[in-house]
Amino acid sequence: MDKSAGLEKLKYIDRERRLLERASALLRWDEETYLPEKGVEERADQLALLERLGHEAFVRPETGKLLAEMGSDAANPRGDESLPPLDRDFLRVMRRSYDRASRLPPDFVANAARAEGLSQAAWVKARKNDDFSTFLPHLQTMIDFARRKAEYWGYGKGGDSPGSVYDGLLDIYEPGMGAAQIKAVFGPLRERLQTLLKAIAQKPLPDVSFLDQDYDTGVQARFNLRLMDILGFDKSRGRLDVSAHPFTTTLGSDDVRITTRYFPRNLLSSIFSTIHESGHAFYDMAFPEALRGSCLADGASMAVHESQSRFWENVIGRSRPFWEALFPVLKEYFPAQLRDSRAEALYRGANMVRPSLIRVDADEVSYSLHIILRFELEEALFSGELEPQNLPGEWRRRMKEIIGVENDTDANGVLQDVHWSMGSFGYFPSYALGNLYGLQFLKKLRSDLPGFEDHIGQLRFDEVRRWLGENIHTWGCRLEPGELLKKVTGENLSASAFLEYIEGKYRGIYGI
Amino acid sequence: MDKSAGLEKLKYIDRERRLLERASALLRWDEETYLPEKGVEERADQLALLERLGHEAFVRPETGKLLAEMGSDAANPRGDESLPPLDRDFLRVMRRSYDRASRLPPDFVANAARAEGLSQAAWVKARKNDDFSTFLPHLQTMIDFARRKAEYWGYGKGGDSPGSVYDGLLDIYEPGMGAAQIKAVFGPLRERLQTLLKAIAQKPLPDVSFLDQDYDTGVQARFNLRLMDILGFDKSRGRLDVSAHPFTTTLGSDDVRITTRYFPRNLLSSIFSTIHESGHAFYDMAFPEALRGSCLADGASMAVHESQSRFWENVIGRSRPFWEALFPVLKEYFPAQLRDSRAEALYRGANMVRPSLIRVDADEVSYSLHIILRFELEEALFSGELEPQNLPGEWRRRMKEIIGVENDTDANGVLQDVHWSMGSFGYFPSYALGNLYGLQFLKKLRSDLPGFEDHIGQLRFDEVRRWLGENIHTWGCRLEPGELLKKVTGENLSASAFLEYIEGKYRGIYGI
Repeated sequence: MDKSAGLEKLKYIDRERRLLERASALLRWDEETYLPEKGVEERADQLALLERLGHEAFVRPETGKLLAEMGSDAANPRGDESLPPLDRDFLRVMRRSYDRASRLPPDFVANAARAEGLSQAAWVKARKNDDFSTFLPHLQTMIDFARRKAEYWGYGKGGDSPGSVYDGLLDIYEPGMGAAQIKAVFGPLRERLQTLLKAIAQKPLPDVSFLDQDYDTGVQARFNLRLMDILGFDKSRGRLDVSAHPFTTTLGSDDVRITTRYFPRNLLSSIFSTIHESGHAFYDMAFPEALRGSCLADGASMAVHESQSRFWENVIGRSRPFWEALFPVLKEYFPAQLRDSRAEALYRGANMVRPSLIRVDADEVSYSLHIILRFELEEALFSGELEPQNLPGEWRRRMKEIIGVENDTDANGVLQDVHWSMGSFGYFPSYALGNLYGLQFLKKLRSDLPGFEDHIGQLRFDEVRRWLGENIHTWGCRLEPGELLKKVTGENLSASAFLEYIEGKYRGIYGI
Repeated sequence: MDKSAGLEKLKYIDRERRLLERASALLRWDEETYLPEKGVEERADQLALLERLGHEAFVRPETGKLLAEMGSDAANPRGDESLPPLDRDFLRVMRRSYDRASRLPPDFVANAARAEGLSQAAWVKARKNDDFSTFLPHLQTMIDFARRKAEYWGYGKGGDSPGSVYDGLLDIYEPGMGAAQIKAVFGPLRERLQTLLKAIAQKPLPDVSFLDQDYDTGVQARFNLRLMDILGFDKSRGRLDVSAHPFTTTLGSDDVRITTRYFPRNLLSSIFSTIHESGHAFYDMAFPEALRGSCLADGASMAVHESQSRFWENVIGRSRPFWEALFPVLKEYFPAQLRDSRAEALYRGANMVRPSLIRVDADEVSYSLHIILRFELEEALFSGELEPQNLPGEWRRRMKEIIGVENDTDANGVLQDVHWSMGSFGYFPSYALGNLYGLQFLKKLRSDLPGFEDHIGQLRFDEVRRWLGENIHTWGCRLEPGELLKKVTGENLSASAFLEYIEGKYRGIYGI
């Protein structure tokens, strides 16, 4: 068969799936932002149908046949060597998602979806009642489904595929990354962050009394829109809304939406959510024309996506030059509340560090330790070393050991995250890997753009966005995360850059 | 085949189409409310795909086969007499929409959609440039497509089907209603409204200087939310947003959304839009459980839907007891602006009557005359009596004759409405028929609920909503509009109730 006609057909199949995914994404976005309370049930039916149609449009014999005709198989996913590189990357990504989707029997998918629904509902209740025992059977079921999923996908059978069930699960979110590789970087990270955290805990907290005031949420909303303009968010191609948990969703090449949330007595929360989600949005807004609307218009991985959001939130948004420049702008919006404050106080407020129980509220120093805790527990669960019923005790023991705080409840401990109740094992490491990637990228960015800090100090981000666009975003998911990292920085994954940054920054702040 | 199994399959097909329609409706709602400017193009692709899938899921041989097995055909759409009445009504509605959808060849549908897109774009430009000649070829194409559509549907060939192309087009929006029937009621309507309008035009306008102030749109928005509560709009099952043109959309049995628009110097516009759209929403929110999620959960027709929105907007929302009761509430929101006003002034302001050029801005007296003008022109176009190129001249001549005003431009005249550019011929009469139905219903409502005016005066609408629900909404589209009218009022379509109401009200206001 004519290769270009076959490719066109595959691209059409991909395009159709993509359009349906984006329609679904709008339904989900609306569910989190504007859906009336009682509309939830029918919305679930609408979503289930769209997802089934999307699955059916993609996983059909024709897709497999076309991929095979292009020479794409498990051993050589990129297909025929005579094809242009962009098409070969397209084939690799299509092959991966086709195999993923087609190897799971429909019955298994349906049963897993049902079990996930029940498990999530049980988790909500268990967390509310601080009662792990009612969640335990669901957790066991979720572990079982995850194990079988990894088995269907045949971890350890392909060319460079890794070797254990947990490796197979990690590979879902971070292609090409196994537990051994992650362990190698998490080891030094754990040790040095623990040392730093302990040292900071000895120091007094900064004076952040300015935070303890009312900040009108309507004014916060106006400021956050201004902040997006400052960062360079093109509002003709996206928007900001409010949801219970901030997120970014991509509804089209020119329709990337972020959300934030406003607390009247927490000025900083909405600001950092907006910056974080803008970082995600910049990625999805910058894919080049040739990738748009196809499966290649996506982040290289969960962790690379997090590297972007955390880079904006932490490296830029929690830096001193940023707060020195942003403070006068913020003061325009809250003149009474900030009358007696200085930029330095806000900088210190944005960088308060304390060992704590809750991951999502954790500071930049302890955040990765929360992740390492979960990574170690997941690994133990899937190696069989840890039984699910012993999870709460093991959580408390390691929480004390790694972060140095005592859990008072399971609700605040092992039950705090939604991920396991959804069967998303292997997802957590992405968050910490994102920190590492981000700082490895920064090293290169600094050498290419020596005035980086000055740009921040002038709130001029066009050059920074351009660099990220040309070096990272331009690839979409054409490269696996490890390949992308190598291409941009010449390095393999390492915790050094992150540790150097974080130790330098916080020793400075806390006078250690 | 087992009838109940066949019915279940048909209901499943209907349900799937419905869910896809509602997903599409969310995409359209978002397009009018929140879609970023540059997201329009990809949104069109998403919508085109969803609509194609919805069409394919419905128009397939299985649907026709199942309908035939249930004994449903053109002569006997309600199918086997042994089936329960609800199922027979379901079959009637399914048969009608299946025939409508399946009789149009796919090529014709695709060509018509393309032509409509071009025609609408040409209309936007022509209106902007006040240049009918550039729109004329598109109008001719739209007339041609409409004619062919009516021919495919076979007007005049079925049992009680009407006889001309234009009858066939009218039947799309108002099943069972032909041009002759409409003419019979539009005749006296035209004459008596003209007389009334002329008499009012001799009288001085009321003092409405209170309107000529700034009304903060944020405060207007808060008031409109309060107004919805007053009317009894359940916000856990719907919401209010802002769009350029107010509309109602139903995204689920428990998700009915309305929009309004705010003008800083027009206090009344948003209020009447909110009341009007709430009237539509009440209809779609009140379908009984047995109809929900099926094709029977729909209004009996466009005109019956308009009868509800206009009933709320005009009969309730433009009444004296309503303004006497609403005025103190409104004054809470605009104490400075309304300090020196009285309820009577707002009542008079809400009922200002003057012959005017623009239909959507027309008052209650002249509105139906605008519709009659369009009806007469449409009939002449499809009978061949009027050539499209003569439309602008004919518009001016009849505008002067019927409403008594002179068109200065075509932009303000024949080009003012979007309908013809989309090929929606036969739609306009619904607006005026809605006025007539609404007042026929009112007569019965008054006799069932003698304290109707007192309820309005206390801003208590639960009994009114209950009556509308139990007598009209409960039927969904199980009955054709004529059958519904007969069942509720015992009467056939007539302009008497409307004329009695409108002459009584406005002679009183203007002292005629």
